[in-house]
Amino acid sequence: MDHDLDLDLHLDGPELTAALTDIASVSGEEGPLADALERALRRLPHLTVTRHGNTLVARTALGKSERVVLAGHIDTVPHADNFPSHFDSERSRLSGVGTSDMKAGVAVQLRLAASLAAPNRDVTYVFYECEEVNVERNGLFLLAKESPELLDGSFAVLLEPTGGVVEGGCQGTLRASITVTGARAHTARSWMGKNAIHQAGAVLEILRGWTPRKPMVDGLEYHEGLNAVAISGGVAGNVVPDQCVVTVNYRFAPDRSGEEAEAYIRELFSGWEVALLDVAPGARPGLSAPPAAAFAAAVGGTPRAKLGWTDVARFAELGIPAVNYGPGLPEVAHTAGEYVETAPIVAAEQRLRAWLEAT
Amino acid sequence: MDHDLDLDLHLDGPELTAALTDIASVSGEEGPLADALERALRRLPHLTVTRHGNTLVARTALGKSERVVLAGHIDTVPHADNFPSHFDSERSRLSGVGTSDMKAGVAVQLRLAASLAAPNRDVTYVFYECEEVNVERNGLFLLAKESPELLDGSFAVLLEPTGGVVEGGCQGTLRASITVTGARAHTARSWMGKNAIHQAGAVLEILRGWTPRKPMVDGLEYHEGLNAVAISGGVAGNVVPDQCVVTVNYRFAPDRSGEEAEAYIRELFSGWEVALLDVAPGARPGLSAPPAAAFAAAVGGTPRAKLGWTDVARFAELGIPAVNYGPGLPEVAHTAGEYVETAPIVAAEQRLRAWLEAT
Repeated sequence: MDHDLDLDLHLDGPELTAALTDIASVSGEEGPLADALERALRRLPHLTVTRHGNTLVARTALGKSERVVLAGHIDTVPHADNFPSHFDSERSRLSGVGTSDMKAGVAVQLRLAASLAAPNRDVTYVFYECEEVNVERNGLFLLAKESPELLDGSFAVLLEPTGGVVEGGCQGTLRASITVTGARAHTARSWMGKNAIHQAGAVLEILRGWTPRKPMVDGLEYHEGLNAVAISGGVAGNVVPDQCVVTVNYRFAPDRSGEEAEAYIRELFSGWEVALLDVAPGARPGLSAPPAAAFAAAVGGTPRAKLGWTDVARFAELGIPAVNYGPGLPEVAHTAGEYVETAPIVAAEQRLRAWLEAT
Repeated sequence: MDHDLDLDLHLDGPELTAALTDIASVSGEEGPLADALERALRRLPHLTVTRHGNTLVARTALGKSERVVLAGHIDTVPHADNFPSHFDSERSRLSGVGTSDMKAGVAVQLRLAASLAAPNRDVTYVFYECEEVNVERNGLFLLAKESPELLDGSFAVLLEPTGGVVEGGCQGTLRASITVTGARAHTARSWMGKNAIHQAGAVLEILRGWTPRKPMVDGLEYHEGLNAVAISGGVAGNVVPDQCVVTVNYRFAPDRSGEEAEAYIRELFSGWEVALLDVAPGARPGLSAPPAAAFAAAVGGTPRAKLGWTDVARFAELGIPAVNYGPGLPEVAHTAGEYVETAPIVAAEQRLRAWLEAT
């Protein structure tokens, strides 16, 4: 690994995406890429740069009345024989780990950071580590906890892969365990006991019969989900089991708070012992707020609801409306065949530039 | 451990049970007890003794037209602060690990072996190791495989704890896994996949709705059982799982062969992939066969069906009718509070003696 690798921010978007992809940065190993980014950003006189672990924050300080945040993570999932990157023969597609999720988005951030010395709004560029792993290591989470003032702004754009469509807000996610109890017995006299696995069938029936809510929130339609993600039970091959645990994952629309989601699940499974494992509230799209509306109008297209949970929820927690908008393709993220189309990289940069240069 | 410990076969049944109990013989550690048994048996001139590991076979050789087998295992489950044994103040009860399961039965075997120099039938006494652990170590299984001629006979009695009631035959046991498949998806878009755990609810519904057969076999009523003994499924907390495996244990009456039991389970769960894990056929009670009928008449009482699987099935496989009949209490077997009543030890010996001495 060449720690003195230099990034040329004058490369076009697709070329810069390839250069970023070819500096390996699996979660936890972002050091070399963060070093390269730091050197490149510190060369730009219109930006104030600070580093926090392998997370970088670069800010204009023009005294504008409005400040927006453009954020993206610099880590990738582990390689799967898809490193380094390669273009197809027509250069319409770049394949490799992290191209869509989300080195292409980072390239757009960098191109804007390098070229917009006098944007119409103050801009904060955040390049953060460890998005693909557990939350305690997430660079944006750590920054929000330790230096929330660096994330100040009236609006935020997360350059996660959305296929070039504005995806507003995000759904929340909750996990809970449902414990079904019975009574042990020898299977040769099973009527002396009560089979907890058989009883758990009633929990699965509720899940099978559940109809998802699809509420409209701030003009976007969400689509909830409720799934068993694990089940376990059993004592021995000749014992009627006295316990069966079903773990469920509830993806809830952002018109519900985390507390409301928990109460809903407890009510739905009120016949059993329910334990909350974790909950992360979603984020309302807030596209009707002035800065968000200006953004949506500038980039065009028809916004849709973000169904997965993303770091926009961290901005929501700080009271900052946020959307997902990036050139990558969400459906190929985390696959061995990950790739990004090159044209949308250029298009996304153009649209964001138009938004930040409009007078 | 005193390897030269001597067993006095002139002790009465309860005293001999206590002496046997106080030679620890957890499965796999039967050596000292087998040594003591071997010394005691070899002193009896009317018996031919052979040893196979820690399993002992002692046979009369009187040239009778009929030969019966009295068999019992000499191992116990691990101690649970219940060693050595102790009598209650009235000597009506002996407490300790293995008293009911089945040192009391072994004491009866030994008392008969020592005192019946000229029984009305030839008798084979089998004292075998490792009944409480997996089948590959079971002394009776090994003997049946390596020297089946030593188990020859027209009838066998297993002195397992039955509370002094004749328990005929035994039910078979079969384990199978039922694999339910689905399709993975991110839980934020769960409708793109198919949740295998939810689908497994249909398997559990069959189990919950199942009505046990209670067939009469050779005059005894059996009672089947079908239970999930394990369930597992789940990929990750945010993934719709594509597989769920339910393991079932079918306890089937001895009017069904192992093949029939397997076919029944495959038919019942024909919508899914069924894999047979293991099957052990049961044993018909055969109480109408002449030697068994003579036994039942001699010991008296009303025979009932054995619902659990026991080693009588090994005799059945050799074509030998077999019953369970012993002084221990099955309901306290394997418990920390295990005990045996002393009166039934004496009674069982008297009844077996009457059967083997009748002219």
